[in-house]
Amino acid sequence: MDYFYGPGRNHLFVPGPVNIPEQVIRAMNRNNEDYRSPAVPALTKTLLEDVKKVFKTTSGTPFMIPTTGTGAWESALTNTLSPGDRIVSFLIGQFSLLWIDQQQRLNFNVDVVESDWGQGANLDVLASKIAEDKEHTIKAICIVHNETATGVTNNLATVRKILDHYQHPALFLVDGVSSICALDFRMDEWGVDVALTGSQKALSLPTGIGIICASPKALEATKTAKSVRVFFDWNDYLKFYKMGTYWPYTPSIQLLYGLRAALELIFEEGLDNVIARHGRLAKATRLAVEAWGLKNCTQKEEWFSDTVTAVVVPPYIDSSEIVKRAWKRYNLSLGLGLNKVAGKVFRIGHLGNLNELQLLGCLAGVEMVLKDVGYPVKLGSGVAAASGYLSNATPIIPSRI
Amino acid sequence: MDYFYGPGRNHLFVPGPVNIPEQVIRAMNRNNEDYRSPAVPALTKTLLEDVKKVFKTTSGTPFMIPTTGTGAWESALTNTLSPGDRIVSFLIGQFSLLWIDQQQRLNFNVDVVESDWGQGANLDVLASKIAEDKEHTIKAICIVHNETATGVTNNLATVRKILDHYQHPALFLVDGVSSICALDFRMDEWGVDVALTGSQKALSLPTGIGIICASPKALEATKTAKSVRVFFDWNDYLKFYKMGTYWPYTPSIQLLYGLRAALELIFEEGLDNVIARHGRLAKATRLAVEAWGLKNCTQKEEWFSDTVTAVVVPPYIDSSEIVKRAWKRYNLSLGLGLNKVAGKVFRIGHLGNLNELQLLGCLAGVEMVLKDVGYPVKLGSGVAAASGYLSNATPIIPSRI
Amino acid sequence: MDYFYGPGRNHLFVPGPVNIPEQVIRAMNRNNEDYRSPAVPALTKTLLEDVKKVFKTTSGTPFMIPTTGTGAWESALTNTLSPGDRIVSFLIGQFSLLWIDQQQRLNFNVDVVESDWGQGANLDVLASKIAEDKEHTIKAICIVHNETATGVTNNLATVRKILDHYQHPALFLVDGVSSICALDFRMDEWGVDVALTGSQKALSLPTGIGIICASPKALEATKTAKSVRVFFDWNDYLKFYKMGTYWPYTPSIQLLYGLRAALELIFEEGLDNVIARHGRLAKATRLAVEAWGLKNCTQKEEWFSDTVTAVVVPPYIDSSEIVKRAWKRYNLSLGLGLNKVAGKVFRIGHLGNLNELQLLGCLAGVEMVLKDVGYPVKLGSGVAAASGYLSNATPIIPSRI
Amino acid sequence: MDYFYGPGRNHLFVPGPVNIPEQVIRAMNRNNEDYRSPAVPALTKTLLEDVKKVFKTTSGTPFMIPTTGTGAWESALTNTLSPGDRIVSFLIGQFSLLWIDQQQRLNFNVDVVESDWGQGANLDVLASKIAEDKEHTIKAICIVHNETATGVTNNLATVRKILDHYQHPALFLVDGVSSICALDFRMDEWGVDVALTGSQKALSLPTGIGIICASPKALEATKTAKSVRVFFDWNDYLKFYKMGTYWPYTPSIQLLYGLRAALELIFEEGLDNVIARHGRLAKATRLAVEAWGLKNCTQKEEWFSDTVTAVVVPPYIDSSEIVKRAWKRYNLSLGLGLNKVAGKVFRIGHLGNLNELQLLGCLAGVEMVLKDVGYPVKLGSGVAAASGYLSNATPIIPSRI
Repeated sequence: MDYFYGPGRNHLFVPGPVNIPEQVIRAMNRNNEDYRSPAVPALTKTLLEDVKKVFKTTSGTPFMIPTTGTGAWESALTNTLSPGDRIVSFLIGQFSLLWIDQQQRLNFNVDVVESDWGQGANLDVLASKIAEDKEHTIKAICIVHNETATGVTNNLATVRKILDHYQHPALFLVDGVSSICALDFRMDEWGVDVALTGSQKALSLPTGIGIICASPKALEATKTAKSVRVFFDWNDYLKFYKMGTYWPYTPSIQLLYGLRAALELIFEEGLDNVIARHGRLAKATRLAVEAWGLKNCTQKEEWFSDTVTAVVVPPYIDSSEIVKRAWKRYNLSLGLGLNKVAGKVFRIGHLGNLNELQLLGCLAGVEMVLKDVGYPVKLGSGVAAASGYLSNATPIIPSRI
Repeated sequence: MDYFYGPGRNHLFVPGPVNIPEQVIRAMNRNNEDYRSPAVPALTKTLLEDVKKVFKTTSGTPFMIPTTGTGAWESALTNTLSPGDRIVSFLIGQFSLLWIDQQQRLNFNVDVVESDWGQGANLDVLASKIAEDKEHTIKAICIVHNETATGVTNNLATVRKILDHYQHPALFLVDGVSSICALDFRMDEWGVDVALTGSQKALSLPTGIGIICASPKALEATKTAKSVRVFFDWNDYLKFYKMGTYWPYTPSIQLLYGLRAALELIFEEGLDNVIARHGRLAKATRLAVEAWGLKNCTQKEEWFSDTVTAVVVPPYIDSSEIVKRAWKRYNLSLGLGLNKVAGKVFRIGHLGNLNELQLLGCLAGVEMVLKDVGYPVKLGSGVAAASGYLSNATPIIPSRI
Repeated sequence: MDYFYGPGRNHLFVPGPVNIPEQVIRAMNRNNEDYRSPAVPALTKTLLEDVKKVFKTTSGTPFMIPTTGTGAWESALTNTLSPGDRIVSFLIGQFSLLWIDQQQRLNFNVDVVESDWGQGANLDVLASKIAEDKEHTIKAICIVHNETATGVTNNLATVRKILDHYQHPALFLVDGVSSICALDFRMDEWGVDVALTGSQKALSLPTGIGIICASPKALEATKTAKSVRVFFDWNDYLKFYKMGTYWPYTPSIQLLYGLRAALELIFEEGLDNVIARHGRLAKATRLAVEAWGLKNCTQKEEWFSDTVTAVVVPPYIDSSEIVKRAWKRYNLSLGLGLNKVAGKVFRIGHLGNLNELQLLGCLAGVEMVLKDVGYPVKLGSGVAAASGYLSNATPIIPSRI
Repeated sequence: MDYFYGPGRNHLFVPGPVNIPEQVIRAMNRNNEDYRSPAVPALTKTLLEDVKKVFKTTSGTPFMIPTTGTGAWESALTNTLSPGDRIVSFLIGQFSLLWIDQQQRLNFNVDVVESDWGQGANLDVLASKIAEDKEHTIKAICIVHNETATGVTNNLATVRKILDHYQHPALFLVDGVSSICALDFRMDEWGVDVALTGSQKALSLPTGIGIICASPKALEATKTAKSVRVFFDWNDYLKFYKMGTYWPYTPSIQLLYGLRAALELIFEEGLDNVIARHGRLAKATRLAVEAWGLKNCTQKEEWFSDTVTAVVVPPYIDSSEIVKRAWKRYNLSLGLGLNKVAGKVFRIGHLGNLNELQLLGCLAGVEMVLKDVGYPVKLGSGVAAASGYLSNATPIIPSRI
């Protein structure tokens, strides 16, 4: 029961869902269990404690909701805001666009701050808006830490600085879907009020858990937030947390054990080493892109993403052709260009449980596909640039020293 | 990484999540995949066609949402109704209660028709309400096909008859969470407008897919339904169905392959044989309960559930003690009594991929636990009653004739 | 890809291969690895240490050969003996017969001491032979600890006493295939020189490792043993043990990790508790057989096996019909009667990772099958007898106290 | 329970055990079964038919013995020959050496024809010996199709031509461990009498099945072969083949299902495409080696192996250092140089279920390691050479056209 079988492994370089480590696949290879027995709460308790570490928060309250990133977004918004609330939101690519679409459909009053796709959030505009908003009509700032469609990372520390500078009480809501557990993300230090990710991203699990952390201030906001919510209502969780049974409805037993295993691997490697590894693989990817003579969709270095690189192709090439051929000929899965950049960029996701040689295999594949579609690439050039860097930057695997 | 290890297999007899067949566990034992490649849509297409068979509908439109039954409820309501809409809903146990709670929190105007826990929905009251409602102020009837807390199955054909008799246009929304794929459920024949189930019930998968089928009339209703919805919005799915990519956000690759495998098993056995098997195991369970001298929580035979049996214990026994001891001593997972019947009943879930000897092992275990808690049971009596019936009623496994 | 699919779990009660715990299935769910990397030797080292505990030996040297029990037999014989060597061997059932057949084909001079099938080894004959053998022409005693075909356990302590009494230096070679890790087996205390088992028996793994422990005396014997051997030659292993790489040829990576997991479970439960559990399940089985009015093939209580019970059927019934129907109708796998007892007995294997309710499910199934084949069984009688005992004898699962 | 964890996948490029496809891992993810039920023989029957296709034989009789390649060797020899029999055997590397060692320990009279390591079997010597042997004292020719230690492939068609030319009746025994299912191997056409392989090689399974095919002439030879054999005796299998139960002792249920899945994949890809893929990856590897300025251990193109490439390192480098660093830093598993070429070569195994980008990832890794150990490699040069070739030679994956 496999569709379109090809020999060897699939090279999965979309920016999610990402490769699941064998250890995690193993941990999920199990029958269901009664989630009301003592075992599942005991397990859940450790997970709630440990996901906080990945968000770098001690004061946050985590929720692991059986949903996707889209559901996690909805949960972040409806638990903290009321219809009509004014929020500032940054449109910089397809995923921020979709989140804004959701915000509007949930009847918030959204100040959309748009940038060119390939640029980061325009924080100057934010500063002006905040400066002007003496009445505190702005209830929340919504921002993606990393825009998966363009490979742009926003500077969250600056957002916090702006809010602090003007002592503005707006909630600070962050989509960390393609950042948390891969990029340097500091919920407490940056005063993020709600941060969220999905299990199929840097945590390297199957899709199915939207993980959200809420600051004390965010929890306080739930008391007055009038948005209608039931499935996504944090209060139902909080009620069950108090009872020690944790689950208002049935969780996926398999994903809980999978998350346990995923966290073990992250802690064994060390979260900072995980982040450093993402930095290393990303830099190698960018060097390859440069060596191919292609441009990064991201317009400035300060926005370079360490989890996904969107590569701009020359106008005479259709980037979706690259994605199609990569899959058809080399069993290589690359990310399509979406919406405004459809046909113009292809994306290399380099997040999750991944290592140097996997990436170099991907880059070698991209080179061959570039040649296939008529781009005058020098085969080996990207790999050489990437491995030149990696050969200096890659540490010995700690457990093997 | 197992909590509370005990030798041998866990005997899982809660009414969900239920046992996953080894074939399905195997099918899910896989890495992630790019859900935008041609493989996942090709797979999805077959699933959408085939889940309709399980609902016995040809005209319905299926949605497989990454959520639980609670989310599926919300999806059924918000896609078809507007805040303030009057609906009739039947409170007959904990799960209908929770659905009603959701309906109220979603701001519908709910006529709650309550019955004693252990009785079915009072359809006489429904008939009067419908008869009286010349103005068609009632927009929907919400009913659980099977109340999992008490083991009560409602007569859906009668609901349809009442609506038809009065030519009442109310939508007919059915929670089939503990019925579909186990009980005789006929979406088209009964004119059900929205039916739903969860993957972890009779389909015998992990938690994670809420499966919903909407009739053409229900789809029509989405056009005027003003309830706020984004994550659960069917229109987002319909848009992607048209494009042939099927997914507005990332599905669980593993669950899709698991569902494929689960459906194969159901079709190999034959859906009618699956339903007959559930009838057989349920009858055997009831005979055992009778032999033990205990009462079924369900007050009349017409309501007997073929997926779960709630057993009433004598007043001097705390049923939660039974559940606790079963797990501690015999690795047997039984269902607790919930809410009004907490401490008064324990539940034997006999749904999903299960066979005769698994059930008899469970019944033998229940007997021993009953003895442990001081109930004067004759050991072997329930098993004898059950196996007396099963030994006549069980057919040869078709593939082995 | 399943042949003869039936719903629910297969009830596996043949005396091997036995049920594999989910934890072990999980541990084996992995890709291959380079067995020459540091990881595999590190793992192997722990296994070699830990299998000794299961044999209750500190002085023995273990070998984990990629083979079956038959290969382990061959390894035991050819490493310690020379063609023409006189050995005493006990024929008490099909497996001892097969071992004797092997001994003869390997050109040993075998004194076959035959008993009725259903009796244990005739140790009086052994005593006379040993007493008479002043010249020490007898080089080895070969005996099965447990004859899997008849459910007979031999008294190994008595064998040792006889040898010691006459100060006879014969090697003491024991087939522990259906005993080790289930019955009380004491390699060092009983002065066993070679003991062996197979991974698919009480260790609850797939087939594929023949595990052998050799006493210092057995190792000494290899120096003069002239039997031709290459694949089974212990010296090749010893050479690699010294080098710290452990493997003269490629082991199964999966089975090594599986064995690691299996041993963890055994140590978590406690080997003595494992053995007690086998005693408990066996006693329950025998009580059921008695309640059915049937006879145990084993003629005296002293020989009763705690891992397998061979049940004698009345002459008018063909026991192979029982086995066939159990599988066809109830997905229950029982053991056939073999050779001399073909058609006359069926066997219930109750070894490995198994618990009370699994056994009671099996017994309930046997009852129904007995009825099917025309035996006047009272349904429930065997289960009642077994559960009467188990309900008193079964301790709380330690991790759940 | 993972030793020496490193993030991302292990890059397994030892020439066995090789990567197992996910489909096969899945197929093996299962509990044990009664091997005497109808299911296992039904499965076995299909396997025996289908493995013959992989050997390209219609007249051969296959045996799937629970053992390794070393055991398969022993089985080939002892079933067809008698102690003292004269055989001609070619020593061209570590594995032919080990087989010769086995032949000698099994008391055959071995004419060892030695070549330099890196050369193929000296078939001129064979021709002379055969020409001289008018008396037909030579009973068998033993030859490895592919010497895994040096990456040398022998010309089996020539061996057959020599034997035919002189109408010499010697048996033609072939070790196809690192060839069958990867190289072009034609049992019937080349008149091979016994051919054998191991499951962990090109079939891409775990270790545990030695697969042997015997020609009618080889089967005839068993009747007079006096070598002592029990576990490896083909006659025990033939007896069970006749009965239709197939197994003289317990097989690994998991490996049987795994083999079924492996064969499905091979047939889906097409055996000839599998072989072509091996040719393609091997050529790419050799081009990389050349680009690095290193030499292939194999001295002439006619002997180049399409399953493993042994790369000679300059005298000032210790090749074992390369293997060690590859594993420690890049999670890349390469093959060590063995025995005579220890320290002088490292090996890249490119057999089994593998594709182009996996190989390029490996080659990129080798380059970085070469740099690490002080070899003046131009990073990217090998990858460029390999991908230059692959980008022309790689077909679209047939299922994705």
